[in-house]
Amino acid sequence: MATTPARRCRLALNTATLGFRHTLPEIVEAAASRGISGIAPWRRELADTPPAEVRRRFEDAGLTVTCLCRGSYLTFASEQQRTAILEDNRRAIDEAAALGAPVLCMVVGGLPEGMHDLASARRQVTEQLAALLPHARAHGVRLALEPLHPMYAADRSCVSTLAQALDICDQVGPELGVMIDAYHLWWDPDFAAGLARAGADRLLGWQICDWRVPTRDLLQDRAMIGDGVIDLARMHREVAAAGWRGMVEVEIFSALDWDQRPMAETLDVLCARFDRLALPEPA
Amino acid sequence: MATTPARRCRLALNTATLGFRHTLPEIVEAAASRGISGIAPWRRELADTPPAEVRRRFEDAGLTVTCLCRGSYLTFASEQQRTAILEDNRRAIDEAAALGAPVLCMVVGGLPEGMHDLASARRQVTEQLAALLPHARAHGVRLALEPLHPMYAADRSCVSTLAQALDICDQVGPELGVMIDAYHLWWDPDFAAGLARAGADRLLGWQICDWRVPTRDLLQDRAMIGDGVIDLARMHREVAAAGWRGMVEVEIFSALDWDQRPMAETLDVLCARFDRLALPEPA
Repeated sequence: MATTPARRCRLALNTATLGFRHTLPEIVEAAASRGISGIAPWRRELADTPPAEVRRRFEDAGLTVTCLCRGSYLTFASEQQRTAILEDNRRAIDEAAALGAPVLCMVVGGLPEGMHDLASARRQVTEQLAALLPHARAHGVRLALEPLHPMYAADRSCVSTLAQALDICDQVGPELGVMIDAYHLWWDPDFAAGLARAGADRLLGWQICDWRVPTRDLLQDRAMIGDGVIDLARMHREVAAAGWRGMVEVEIFSALDWDQRPMAETLDVLCARFDRLALPEPA
Repeated sequence: MATTPARRCRLALNTATLGFRHTLPEIVEAAASRGISGIAPWRRELADTPPAEVRRRFEDAGLTVTCLCRGSYLTFASEQQRTAILEDNRRAIDEAAALGAPVLCMVVGGLPEGMHDLASARRQVTEQLAALLPHARAHGVRLALEPLHPMYAADRSCVSTLAQALDICDQVGPELGVMIDAYHLWWDPDFAAGLARAGADRLLGWQICDWRVPTRDLLQDRAMIGDGVIDLARMHREVAAAGWRGMVEVEIFSALDWDQRPMAETLDVLCARFDRLALPEPA
């Protein structure tokens, strides 16, 4: 861009929004040139470049890391699997620390193979998070438990509501927090109550996208902010009222639509829509 | 079938399971010949035949009607639409009464066109149900409010949980009840608590199918009982513990799979799977 862009102090980009079709340097340049202030990369993007180098690149571009996506599923069908999961998540914590990410986003997994008992899967999640917390504490990384939409209960997250996530936080300890995602929680009548219960100290991230009608795919048909039915302004007011002062991270999985458009188009539309939302700057 | 079939006293067939590809007489014969004891028809199937005649056909075949599917969406974007909705639902109540159906299943609708406010849609649902209740009472038909899976919150049902449905029942009056469907509620950790809160008098139906992994379509990819991850036996025990003594209605929407198989295959597999579940007979 030829002119200095407006600085979007509140806007963070989750790199999944761009469909993992570009290198991190390309994404960093495109985001920074539009005044985007934060970035949430995925672990797969660190495969070829050491986290410390990625960190310098973010810092040079003026991008703050909101979180690293993400820990691997915590539910397990065998003791061997349980151990491997803990090892991988400790590596994820190490990577988050090296990257300077204050938060590691945790998507906890659904039912283990052959199991039909959600309550048991949730107990596994609780125990696994408790086992990981000392490592996270030692490395200055907070774990953000993300409740996922109930349509993912079987295969991605047996934790479906904010209330459930907070129940687990209560059991594991005050250092565990939650990742709030509008896509997963917009339907929940207890959303505002859950935020109040969480309190500012346990709110570790605020992600948005929109709900498309009709939704053609359970995973890859999230809508651009403003193109769906979610009242994002209301949800943001509720998140802010509960004490959230961080950035707003846009995360759109959309193999069916946005992944097929040029990165520049996606980012330009995203920035314009974000500006139109006119969310308040942090206090 | 050449031999007298086992009588499946607890099993009811929701006709949507057969994909609306056969006439009611064909379905009645196929169900009765397998010892199926109950049937839940859809209003569209009454279009060509007066309900009283359909009722006689069911009675002759020894089929009890569990419910009529279903009332039309209650949410509205205009006063004109509101009035039309009430008129159509009063007709549905009349049809249920003529059919001898004790229950009209109510799927309440999502966000009205252009609206983003779920709370307001839920208030509309409450008011509409209150407006319909006198007509239902006068005709001896109970209205069963069915909470639908949160993935339908935008376009099919702004009422997503049993707790929400019961909140509405509390407001509208003791005659309103709920339809319990395993597909919609299996993920909810508060399911058993909701059933206890409902109490036997407000439990008006118990529908089952299964959750397929992966689910390829939000609407038309429900699984045959036993082919998915839902612990139907556990859920049934919880429903029975809350006082349900009625039939178990199998309702499978599956344009992607079962609708493409012969009716006989679907019913044979369904009966075999139902037998294997070995649910207790009514007390």
